[in-house]
Amino acid sequence: MTQEQLTERVAAQDRRAIAKAITLIENDSPGTAELFRALAPKGGRAYRVGITGPPGAGKSTITSELTKALRAQNKTVGIIAIDPTSPFTGGALLGDRIRMQAVSMDKGVYVRSMATRGSLGGLSAKAKDAGDILDAAGFDYILFETVGVGQSELDIAKAADTTIVTLVPESGDSIQAMKSGLMEIADFFVLNKSDREGADQAVLALKTILMFRITHAEDEWVPDVLKTVASKAIGINEVLAEIERHREHLIKTGALEVRRKSRERERIHELVDAMLRIDFWTKDRQDKLEHSLLPILQGEATSYDLAHKLVREFRQT
Amino acid sequence: MTQEQLTERVAAQDRRAIAKAITLIENDSPGTAELFRALAPKGGRAYRVGITGPPGAGKSTITSELTKALRAQNKTVGIIAIDPTSPFTGGALLGDRIRMQAVSMDKGVYVRSMATRGSLGGLSAKAKDAGDILDAAGFDYILFETVGVGQSELDIAKAADTTIVTLVPESGDSIQAMKSGLMEIADFFVLNKSDREGADQAVLALKTILMFRITHAEDEWVPDVLKTVASKAIGINEVLAEIERHREHLIKTGALEVRRKSRERERIHELVDAMLRIDFWTKDRQDKLEHSLLPILQGEATSYDLAHKLVREFRQT
Repeated sequence: MTQEQLTERVAAQDRRAIAKAITLIENDSPGTAELFRALAPKGGRAYRVGITGPPGAGKSTITSELTKALRAQNKTVGIIAIDPTSPFTGGALLGDRIRMQAVSMDKGVYVRSMATRGSLGGLSAKAKDAGDILDAAGFDYILFETVGVGQSELDIAKAADTTIVTLVPESGDSIQAMKSGLMEIADFFVLNKSDREGADQAVLALKTILMFRITHAEDEWVPDVLKTVASKAIGINEVLAEIERHREHLIKTGALEVRRKSRERERIHELVDAMLRIDFWTKDRQDKLEHSLLPILQGEATSYDLAHKLVREFRQT
Repeated sequence: MTQEQLTERVAAQDRRAIAKAITLIENDSPGTAELFRALAPKGGRAYRVGITGPPGAGKSTITSELTKALRAQNKTVGIIAIDPTSPFTGGALLGDRIRMQAVSMDKGVYVRSMATRGSLGGLSAKAKDAGDILDAAGFDYILFETVGVGQSELDIAKAADTTIVTLVPESGDSIQAMKSGLMEIADFFVLNKSDREGADQAVLALKTILMFRITHAEDEWVPDVLKTVASKAIGINEVLAEIERHREHLIKTGALEVRRKSRERERIHELVDAMLRIDFWTKDRQDKLEHSLLPILQGEATSYDLAHKLVREFRQT
């Protein structure tokens, strides 16, 4: 497949072409820059939603149910499932994969899981780039779902226009959300498994915590807490309606453009970092570094001085 | 205080000088490189232990009890508590702070919590640098404790010689550990609150998972699972003994030097990244970036092309 053919077929929503394009990105293949240049005029239409939260909160189920609800409205959906790379488990657990397959038999749905981080950026950068491919392929909605815990939960907010944080009624979850920074990234909360005991108290606790964030600024968006039982498809339409409400708010206030600009700004910063790193770490500089490690451990040199010296040399060549 | 006085007083384990030195690092103050150069010959003696795990596993209690046990052996202890920066909560929860204060009244103990990430590296880099200060100050053991969840849990392994992952018997915890990468970083596990129901099953589950990691390589370290009830100081001496056993293993196999070299290598990579970033993002380049964002959103340009162009210019000046 030539570059031109690949671009055409991605734009025509050809599944094999999309898969190939995302693999090119994952592997930092040489054609990446050209691919994006060719696809750029075709993107910018899709709306991007991030779904995150602690393990066991039902993120995959919510993603599946949201997808079904969007399909019922005749919208097409691309799903990027993000697994923090684990050399031990090899990524997603089987159960999550099976759940995803239920929706992925549908022609209007494309599911891709990503676990690699390449030299041109971390996992969130790759997910954003894959989102750009799905955008150019004409999907109406792109859902980013994080499997597992860690930084990827927070990074997903960078790839999304609307970020949903899912929690469950069990005590401690709201405290955990406070501690790990999930409160700051949530555009709204979904309390899933809300037929369990303690759901109403959990909603109240979350709303109380959220109250402290209200600044009464003009055009302020106040995150709400929605209840779902995703396994029974209860509350899913309300989640969809809240996504639309947030989207309209972002458009009306101009915040959507601000968010999307900030996403591109951060991506460019990452790309520059990565490109400079590749230029910098020549074989010669790598050797100098290796030979300095023992003297540093022995207190005869310091990391700061070595870094300064190497950077000074680089800037002079 | 002159630079020379500061260095002398840090080396004399003066608490105010240590606090000042760590603050210099946190703020990326101009004197940082000189401070490390002056302190370098005094370091390299301390042994560094990381204590991590999910929220509620009792990390702070284990850290306090380990500290008491080390003090009973007449060893001095520096503690770095790492809070992922949360603009909302302002860092550590009160309870954790109070628990820490119980041990910090002792002259042979120094406690510092860190929450900031500056321009010269992330939180784990700052923690490592703070560890270097405590090392130069002559503390025998440095304990790094993560509060909360997220990337900091995994990063702490980079700052430590021995990494302990703490879990509790509740179901799901071992699966969570598998998913989030904690399995890979653990030199051994501590199952805390092991007087609760399900403790023996949890130990068995963990040991079963660990069995799959055994490679039968020569000098292989096989992580064990220890049981504690930290709130009653049960099992703490066994944890201490296991730290010593791991330390001796690292020394005997030469792995300690490999780990410490890898720590410095990574720190130098981070410092170089940060220094290049400062050189690169001049006012002029920042302006060029800002003016390119709208064309990129409109599909008339791409992030990849802009990054390539800016880097090419930088390399030619």
